[in-house]
Amino acid sequence: MSKPRGFFYPRSATGRASLIPPPPWHYSGDLLTIEYRTDPAAVAELLPAPLEPAAEDSGAVALIWADWQSCGESREELLDPVRSQYRECFAVVRCRFEGRIYSRCVYIWVDKDFALLRGIHQGYPKKLGSIHMTRPHPYGPAPRLAKAARLGATLAAADRRLAEAVIVLEAPTEKNGFVNAHPMAHHRWLPAIDGPGDVHAELIESAGARFEGGAPWRAKVEAFRLFDSPTEELALLPPREIICGYYRQIGVVWNGGKSLQSSVAR
Amino acid sequence: MSKPRGFFYPRSATGRASLIPPPPWHYSGDLLTIEYRTDPAAVAELLPAPLEPAAEDSGAVALIWADWQSCGESREELLDPVRSQYRECFAVVRCRFEGRIYSRCVYIWVDKDFALLRGIHQGYPKKLGSIHMTRPHPYGPAPRLAKAARLGATLAAADRRLAEAVIVLEAPTEKNGFVNAHPMAHHRWLPAIDGPGDVHAELIESAGARFEGGAPWRAKVEAFRLFDSPTEELALLPPREIICGYYRQIGVVWNGGKSLQSSVAR
Amino acid sequence: MSKPRGFFYPRSATGRASLIPPPPWHYSGDLLTIEYRTDPAAVAELLPAPLEPAAEDSGAVALIWADWQSCGESREELLDPVRSQYRECFAVVRCRFEGRIYSRCVYIWVDKDFALLRGIHQGYPKKLGSIHMTRPHPYGPAPRLAKAARLGATLAAADRRLAEAVIVLEAPTEKNGFVNAHPMAHHRWLPAIDGPGDVHAELIESAGARFEGGAPWRAKVEAFRLFDSPTEELALLPPREIICGYYRQIGVVWNGGKSLQSSVAR
Amino acid sequence: MSKPRGFFYPRSATGRASLIPPPPWHYSGDLLTIEYRTDPAAVAELLPAPLEPAAEDSGAVALIWADWQSCGESREELLDPVRSQYRECFAVVRCRFEGRIYSRCVYIWVDKDFALLRGIHQGYPKKLGSIHMTRPHPYGPAPRLAKAARLGATLAAADRRLAEAVIVLEAPTEKNGFVNAHPMAHHRWLPAIDGPGDVHAELIESAGARFEGGAPWRAKVEAFRLFDSPTEELALLPPREIICGYYRQIGVVWNGGKSLQSSVAR
Repeated sequence: MSKPRGFFYPRSATGRASLIPPPPWHYSGDLLTIEYRTDPAAVAELLPAPLEPAAEDSGAVALIWADWQSCGESREELLDPVRSQYRECFAVVRCRFEGRIYSRCVYIWVDKDFALLRGIHQGYPKKLGSIHMTRPHPYGPAPRLAKAARLGATLAAADRRLAEAVIVLEAPTEKNGFVNAHPMAHHRWLPAIDGPGDVHAELIESAGARFEGGAPWRAKVEAFRLFDSPTEELALLPPREIICGYYRQIGVVWNGGKSLQSSVAR
Repeated sequence: MSKPRGFFYPRSATGRASLIPPPPWHYSGDLLTIEYRTDPAAVAELLPAPLEPAAEDSGAVALIWADWQSCGESREELLDPVRSQYRECFAVVRCRFEGRIYSRCVYIWVDKDFALLRGIHQGYPKKLGSIHMTRPHPYGPAPRLAKAARLGATLAAADRRLAEAVIVLEAPTEKNGFVNAHPMAHHRWLPAIDGPGDVHAELIESAGARFEGGAPWRAKVEAFRLFDSPTEELALLPPREIICGYYRQIGVVWNGGKSLQSSVAR
Repeated sequence: MSKPRGFFYPRSATGRASLIPPPPWHYSGDLLTIEYRTDPAAVAELLPAPLEPAAEDSGAVALIWADWQSCGESREELLDPVRSQYRECFAVVRCRFEGRIYSRCVYIWVDKDFALLRGIHQGYPKKLGSIHMTRPHPYGPAPRLAKAARLGATLAAADRRLAEAVIVLEAPTEKNGFVNAHPMAHHRWLPAIDGPGDVHAELIESAGARFEGGAPWRAKVEAFRLFDSPTEELALLPPREIICGYYRQIGVVWNGGKSLQSSVAR
Repeated sequence: MSKPRGFFYPRSATGRASLIPPPPWHYSGDLLTIEYRTDPAAVAELLPAPLEPAAEDSGAVALIWADWQSCGESREELLDPVRSQYRECFAVVRCRFEGRIYSRCVYIWVDKDFALLRGIHQGYPKKLGSIHMTRPHPYGPAPRLAKAARLGATLAAADRRLAEAVIVLEAPTEKNGFVNAHPMAHHRWLPAIDGPGDVHAELIESAGARFEGGAPWRAKVEAFRLFDSPTEELALLPPREIICGYYRQIGVVWNGGKSLQSSVAR
């Protein structure tokens, strides 16, 4: 009998066809972040038990655009960049589990299938979207990565614009915000094949295994709009108060996480 | 504490943002099928234990192109067709489990995210691809759905063409082939978050809950080519002998399946 | 010296690389039309001199969605359908030139490059867009092409939704509307390379060389919305009054037109 | 009577809908170039009279990948980057006209409509394609912009891969190659609406109005493959001998050109 190989779908005799290689996964990317406060109740209702709202500033949200190049250990994807380049936009909140603070991605859109399938593994609730962000550049009309650079970012899905923002870089700063600064607490769900409920429901923790990056830039949020859609609920987290914008270039390695709790509701 | 709702990712207070609604899922579509024989060993190595090769004609493969409109119970997706229309191309083989014959999809490409996520639920090993097939039409240069209609079909992924075919309709026939004619036996895998192996590995059976369709057309396979790619293994199932081509318009309902076996390797 | 061949860009020794073959061009397609009245002044300001508004009902507009398969004389594109299938949405008004009534496309979005380049030849002001329309189907949840069929249609460009509509088929009728029923009067412009103005500005007339089609269906317009965008002006033609909806399957041949007037402004 | 405004299609009362603003157009971008020699006869047959092959090294070709952000005078596109970012891949040869040497783009693929329409103005024979190139990055697995950086580049159109390359940066150098180093000599063609031949055929010259850039990097060409396609002829310019690879970041302004010759064949 055979034992097909491959980290995830599809599995085959060699494992070559698998849409994603096993971790570790390596990333180079640019992050454009907008931190703001929304109604804490709107965040709380997105947190499944036993997660609880953060004790302080529980309505804080980070909406983050990212422009990535990623690869597995072989790094071969980098030379066939249709397989390594992707963009994403995701909304992060904070929550509490057993007394610790976690970050948690509540909505996320990516533009490649390998990123979507990695999300299934990591508990990111990924959909496809169209994501764009201005790229700093040393020549011509695009802004330099420097004070006063104006950077735009947009998100659309299913042919509807969902978010757009403009930030203006002010000065290097210490931190790239505080909302996405904790280990992630995500659920990995698999609905049962034969009726309601999940056959697998696992709360996991994960964080970057290695990290490097330039100094974050603090930015003024010049424009920020969320748009409604019949199939999206990002606009149910409207900004009451802008905290700050950020821009940062980073390198990160993701290499798995740990299981915090497995519970099957059925 | 909250209990977010939604059949699958993302879950929210209302469930509206879920990329897919709960089953039943309803489909209208056109299927273009090429059945052929490859080396039985190439099929066998794709069947994880305890699945075994079919007792007869175990090298038979169906490569199927499908042009779908699909929706949940509300049928609202049909009126916002960016959410209902998608195309796919998939390779099906047969296998045996506890003495019964099953069909099994070994490779599949789709062009929408909702189809990809449904695949995670159903155990289809979906990637994104670019799928095209000639559509019969009653007027102008496109072929009528009638004898002598010539229909082309192509598949690409990651900017590489993977398959192309041309069939010519001959006559209405009884069956739409035999390879994809059984209940599907699929694995639902979820790799462990903290090391090798799967935290969930479930063999499931599923089939259409309801079915309707026109008479299948038997077709001559005029051209059929598979192309190699560094990230695909479809070309490792090359045609040794063409069996037959088919074309059929169908309506189908999918409403879950049953678990045949759950085994966690770790 | 060489004389590269090819109907349009790029030209080469063989002409094979040309994005489009020479006319005649053959089309099979489905048309979903919404006719309505807007402010006649909003139509008039889109008509360059010497075109004048239609004498009657000069504020009438047709917004038309079309799902096409098209090809040149060889018809080879039909068997490699990524080269034949495309969708478009376009706004048509009427105008008058030398006492005759013409139709004129004022805005149009398509989803393939060959369609865009054909537009340059024909004077259609094409942009790329994302266009979707429900397809009638004989089985499953999609509507039959019959009384009470509900069909949706949407348009987006640059990640923004621009239009959406739902129609309900009522009964076969005589005509597929009146706005797009005349020969087209279009401008073919080529801006000068060395300063303001056009080096070529030609008013042309063209119409289908051959036509066949099923009975048009008259339809109730159940929903119809235009959305604003910083880069579009379709929403400056808002519906004051809905006239009627239509649905029709057709075959058409386009084989050139004639020059009505050539004027170079510089 | 009205006088609709706008640089190019579509024209409207305000000019806001025009797919492209009037020049000058501003660009920030990264160029990955491979210069090589092919059969001079294969270049010569792409040069319409009165253009002649370059007197020296007339079989030299540059295949250039570019990752751009571009905008008009208002620069507003930079903040809605779906309207400013695009990629292209193009093949350049040299030719001679009235004793001067020119560069000439013989094939080009872009991934946005505004770039395609600009090409109609500038005489670039643009098609849509899927273009990718590795982006140097200061952190993580992507290569630094430094010696030994390995960069991949790929091109596909109509679901077929057409070209792929890998280069390895060696050292800063003086020039970014010699093939694309001259003013461009392009034809602006508009086929007649009423029969064979062109109603407008203009040979134009254009060059960057302003230029800035970093030091070019000389690169070893580690891999370079062109692939055949039924609709393309790039593979008819196969590499006989690699000259060199290059990588450069630049800023450029394009602000029109001048007409060298207008000839209407009919």
